[in-house]
Amino acid sequence: MSRKLNLALIGAGRIGKLHAETIAFRIPEATMAAITDIRTDLAEAVARRCAIPRVAASVDEIFRDPGIDAVLICSPTNTHAQLVIEAAQAGKHAFCEKPIDHSIEKVDRALREVEKAGVKLQVGYNRRFDPNFARVRKAIASAEIGTPHLLHIISRDPAPPPISYIKDSGGMFLDMTTHDFDMARFLIGDEVTHVYTAAGIRVDPQIGAAGDVDTAVVVLHFANGAIGTIDNCRMAPYGYDQRVEVLGSKGSITTENCYPNYAVISTADSVRRDLPLNFFLDRYTQSFESELRAFVEAVIKDTPTPVTGADGRAPVVMGLAARKSYDEHRPVRLEEISAAKGADTTRSS
Amino acid sequence: MSRKLNLALIGAGRIGKLHAETIAFRIPEATMAAITDIRTDLAEAVARRCAIPRVAASVDEIFRDPGIDAVLICSPTNTHAQLVIEAAQAGKHAFCEKPIDHSIEKVDRALREVEKAGVKLQVGYNRRFDPNFARVRKAIASAEIGTPHLLHIISRDPAPPPISYIKDSGGMFLDMTTHDFDMARFLIGDEVTHVYTAAGIRVDPQIGAAGDVDTAVVVLHFANGAIGTIDNCRMAPYGYDQRVEVLGSKGSITTENCYPNYAVISTADSVRRDLPLNFFLDRYTQSFESELRAFVEAVIKDTPTPVTGADGRAPVVMGLAARKSYDEHRPVRLEEISAAKGADTTRSS
Amino acid sequence: MSRKLNLALIGAGRIGKLHAETIAFRIPEATMAAITDIRTDLAEAVARRCAIPRVAASVDEIFRDPGIDAVLICSPTNTHAQLVIEAAQAGKHAFCEKPIDHSIEKVDRALREVEKAGVKLQVGYNRRFDPNFARVRKAIASAEIGTPHLLHIISRDPAPPPISYIKDSGGMFLDMTTHDFDMARFLIGDEVTHVYTAAGIRVDPQIGAAGDVDTAVVVLHFANGAIGTIDNCRMAPYGYDQRVEVLGSKGSITTENCYPNYAVISTADSVRRDLPLNFFLDRYTQSFESELRAFVEAVIKDTPTPVTGADGRAPVVMGLAARKSYDEHRPVRLEEISAAKGADTTRSS
Amino acid sequence: MSRKLNLALIGAGRIGKLHAETIAFRIPEATMAAITDIRTDLAEAVARRCAIPRVAASVDEIFRDPGIDAVLICSPTNTHAQLVIEAAQAGKHAFCEKPIDHSIEKVDRALREVEKAGVKLQVGYNRRFDPNFARVRKAIASAEIGTPHLLHIISRDPAPPPISYIKDSGGMFLDMTTHDFDMARFLIGDEVTHVYTAAGIRVDPQIGAAGDVDTAVVVLHFANGAIGTIDNCRMAPYGYDQRVEVLGSKGSITTENCYPNYAVISTADSVRRDLPLNFFLDRYTQSFESELRAFVEAVIKDTPTPVTGADGRAPVVMGLAARKSYDEHRPVRLEEISAAKGADTTRSS
Repeated sequence: MSRKLNLALIGAGRIGKLHAETIAFRIPEATMAAITDIRTDLAEAVARRCAIPRVAASVDEIFRDPGIDAVLICSPTNTHAQLVIEAAQAGKHAFCEKPIDHSIEKVDRALREVEKAGVKLQVGYNRRFDPNFARVRKAIASAEIGTPHLLHIISRDPAPPPISYIKDSGGMFLDMTTHDFDMARFLIGDEVTHVYTAAGIRVDPQIGAAGDVDTAVVVLHFANGAIGTIDNCRMAPYGYDQRVEVLGSKGSITTENCYPNYAVISTADSVRRDLPLNFFLDRYTQSFESELRAFVEAVIKDTPTPVTGADGRAPVVMGLAARKSYDEHRPVRLEEISAAKGADTTRSS
Repeated sequence: MSRKLNLALIGAGRIGKLHAETIAFRIPEATMAAITDIRTDLAEAVARRCAIPRVAASVDEIFRDPGIDAVLICSPTNTHAQLVIEAAQAGKHAFCEKPIDHSIEKVDRALREVEKAGVKLQVGYNRRFDPNFARVRKAIASAEIGTPHLLHIISRDPAPPPISYIKDSGGMFLDMTTHDFDMARFLIGDEVTHVYTAAGIRVDPQIGAAGDVDTAVVVLHFANGAIGTIDNCRMAPYGYDQRVEVLGSKGSITTENCYPNYAVISTADSVRRDLPLNFFLDRYTQSFESELRAFVEAVIKDTPTPVTGADGRAPVVMGLAARKSYDEHRPVRLEEISAAKGADTTRSS
Repeated sequence: MSRKLNLALIGAGRIGKLHAETIAFRIPEATMAAITDIRTDLAEAVARRCAIPRVAASVDEIFRDPGIDAVLICSPTNTHAQLVIEAAQAGKHAFCEKPIDHSIEKVDRALREVEKAGVKLQVGYNRRFDPNFARVRKAIASAEIGTPHLLHIISRDPAPPPISYIKDSGGMFLDMTTHDFDMARFLIGDEVTHVYTAAGIRVDPQIGAAGDVDTAVVVLHFANGAIGTIDNCRMAPYGYDQRVEVLGSKGSITTENCYPNYAVISTADSVRRDLPLNFFLDRYTQSFESELRAFVEAVIKDTPTPVTGADGRAPVVMGLAARKSYDEHRPVRLEEISAAKGADTTRSS
Repeated sequence: MSRKLNLALIGAGRIGKLHAETIAFRIPEATMAAITDIRTDLAEAVARRCAIPRVAASVDEIFRDPGIDAVLICSPTNTHAQLVIEAAQAGKHAFCEKPIDHSIEKVDRALREVEKAGVKLQVGYNRRFDPNFARVRKAIASAEIGTPHLLHIISRDPAPPPISYIKDSGGMFLDMTTHDFDMARFLIGDEVTHVYTAAGIRVDPQIGAAGDVDTAVVVLHFANGAIGTIDNCRMAPYGYDQRVEVLGSKGSITTENCYPNYAVISTADSVRRDLPLNFFLDRYTQSFESELRAFVEAVIKDTPTPVTGADGRAPVVMGLAARKSYDEHRPVRLEEISAAKGADTTRSS
């Protein structure tokens, strides 16, 4: 492809706007050719900010446009699977925000259409591109720490979202832990076979009333024998807490949080520093840019995307299994979830 | 008690020798009055080193001596319970190395004798006295971090013990994790109701052949709803790894490993430091001294010991439950272990 | 000013290109209206990259254009003072890369023209905008650490520049230490009265043959009695080393280097991390953006620039004094330099 | 020497008591045979604590006793030189607290007697034995960081001593900086040729009224071309601050302060830790033990002591030169001090 890649954005909310800016200002190989949102005012504001030449009246208009090479699907989760299907049928490559859907059936239908159409699909698990976690993956992939035995993921939000959000979120395991499920598979480079969930309502009883939990430990049993834990909490009073550590046969690797500055103040009271970067837009800035660069490159060079449809499917299975384990107080095999829906979890690359 | 406390040491091995030195050189309120070991040469060497005036020919000789106030039981684990019983019957206070025994029945018999005799019993869970973990306990007890929600204990040895040792050890959960079970109860200040174990043989197949595991994650469900994990491995290539972290409603506290020095070397290759203190005698030096000081003080002032018989019993129950969970691939309630043996786990203080 | 600020770039080298990108992509309140460079190919490349509509044939063309509000002077140092003068005479505000000039006389001539014309001048001491150093300044300005007593600046390059560069650089004190002189004044918020230099040639004898030093400690005596040191070396094998620390009457503040990731790898050899961000474009990315945002805001709101002409003059005086101290093996008062040139060092804001 | 080394303690104050305990409880190769102090009650208390069999009525009694091999001189500074002379004349080896004396003449007289008598002399610069600084020395001695170029020593007390103490102390450079002068020579392994002092009264005007300074930077010019700085302040509000860093041709090494625990607490306010170990008895515990072990070993094995008389002399010269530099606002060559007194600074080992 000698010309620039033409992208259209579907969904002009917070993450959509961020992706539009990244394409417009940081990735010379691509251009934002169109944008659409049911809220036209939002679409127009982003179009102005990023000099996007066209605000489309509908997604259909975008899918029908032969000049559009690929779409960025940043609309609400419950529209993702359908839009992926339509994109595939229109022959457009798709970058789809996570998760693809909360229903394995719908995910599988979308993945079948993608496969049939032969288009690229990348799912927005941006944390894989964070320099810290990428460094951990590199340490494992290069055997710098030998064979991985034990993995721990700490993933805590600074404060819980509104209860209204939680009601639509699919629950913590599908909404928040989904990133950690992806991270676990990414770092270890292997599939999880069963999970065990210990969880509770510690932060806000309203979260419990909405049918969800707000604090959890999920134990992951990997096919290769490695064992992992995910620690989630909807509220870490000191801010966004995002760390991993891995013990391998030759050593370990651990990451620290990222901070707005690396100054340490010592007074008669304590030796202290400012709080870590507060939330994902600040903490994962670089990764949002890197994931889009990777998508653009995969389309241009016709190489596999780094976060495939199968990668997008697995965390949904894991999220459903984690919830089932919590509900039934027992370890749950992923096959119980996956087989029931008749899907193939083979990891494509 | 206006005079010095007279102590006798039973068992002149590595830990016995350490305790004798501590009493002799660091704790002015107590004195080493006698020592015994079936290996007389070892007993005599320690007696010389620590200026202990008498090498007793047998434990009986010690128990019959009215001048002895208390005994330090540092003999092999399978003799602990019986020696605690004999000490109690002789009216001697006892400091007993951990664990009291691998059998809940034998533990309970010993605790009953202690209670009947009204003597003091302290079990050698020294890590409670480590300045780092003591600081974590203080943060929780003082509500500096609010109500604890999530606890993580990392506890890894630098290298596995000889296979012969493993065969007699009672298995990793009774031998190594026992310290972490105690730490979990100590830090959270509450009882565990059930456990789930994920474990495997990752370090050495011979450990598996001996019927044990070498790598494990144990999930702890506390009565108060807090959730904990213990990460154990018989081999951390970089050395002894001993850390905890706790998330509470108001904040978190984490500890770091201890190092022989705090120098950082930066070259064209990396920014690096030396390895952490390699094993327990170096890492926990201060805690071994502090636990004996606490025992001596408890006896002199007639106050409860800081690590009671009930505290010594609980980790044995937890170790048996952790193994059962691993064997049966399911969460196990501690009552399944404890009730079967008819014992009361009420925590005395 | 209701419309966007129109900027022209003079000098399309590395730093010029960076500034053009920042204005084009990050600062919505300003626009790149023109660019010029004696190497037209460079100017055209940057113009394409940043969608700059006009490549001017000469600086005159820019200065004559009434549509240009301000210029970014990124040409070689020996042209700075003259371009500042021409900009002032043409009524253009100027952002000028550091240093203004190596001659106090030429600096003073430029500052007089700026004052006469009433235009804004900001000098490119970008490090003031680094989040770490800004945090230190905040700690001092807010009295978080009380009255500052002692300041230390560590400022080391990863490797020396080519000898040809050193010959034209004005020497380490005018070229490299100039940033640290500015930092010292910025952090302490006071003027230096005299300096003492200890220096040598430790890295490369060719640097000495070129008449320069490559390693130095400069002691700063502040008017308020605070004492500072600057540690400079042309080569830190582990990379770019940029730290400060300040002791005050109520506490201290220290900064750490910035790293590409915050992962720590522990193996049987060491506990280590990757090297710090290697050089200024990576380390000071954010500060380059922030200084231009501050300049654009100062012009739009007609407020003083945060790095004034006087701020640009002081480091030149300090650099000349530091060299004189080294040459004459004695402390040198800044008045010896400044008075000789008949200039007023009053700090304007 | 097959029997234990018999030591006598002269001076039963704080540091004398510490040394007595170390010999009594930690160093099996030596024994405390006698103690003396003009305050007999202090001598008797230490004798009881450490089971020292004899409280001598005078130093003469000790020097006349053929059973005493060596003395620990822990009396006030103004008696050190005379006691070293008497010890030498009595054929006793001497461990002498720092500094030997504030007068180079008196130091030289003492060193001549030591040399004539052929006894061992070790001066109490204990910090050389601190594991952190020992690690730095090792990095330099082993060329792990190449040839040293730049050295920085931070050495700040938690709070100033009483004014009465300051009046007798000889001034900050002879009392406090003396440790840092020793550290500088020890780490770099070379002599300082001249010094430059910037100093002031920042902490307490009464210190100035007593003729002393409380805050200083001393620049050290080493014979080998390395440059060092010492940062001293009588008050660091956060506690005892004891760090060094060295840049060499192949890398750098830096040390951190030591802390009572390595726990980090994160709340909504800050990420913080407890203050560092507050003062020298806590921070340098291990080094006090190690220096005595080294002295005992040097006497027993008839090897040079690790801190010789010449090592004890150099910091006195440096202290006098540092003060002269401050008084005369100019760099001062050590020869100005040393030559005037006609002494030889050759470093013996």
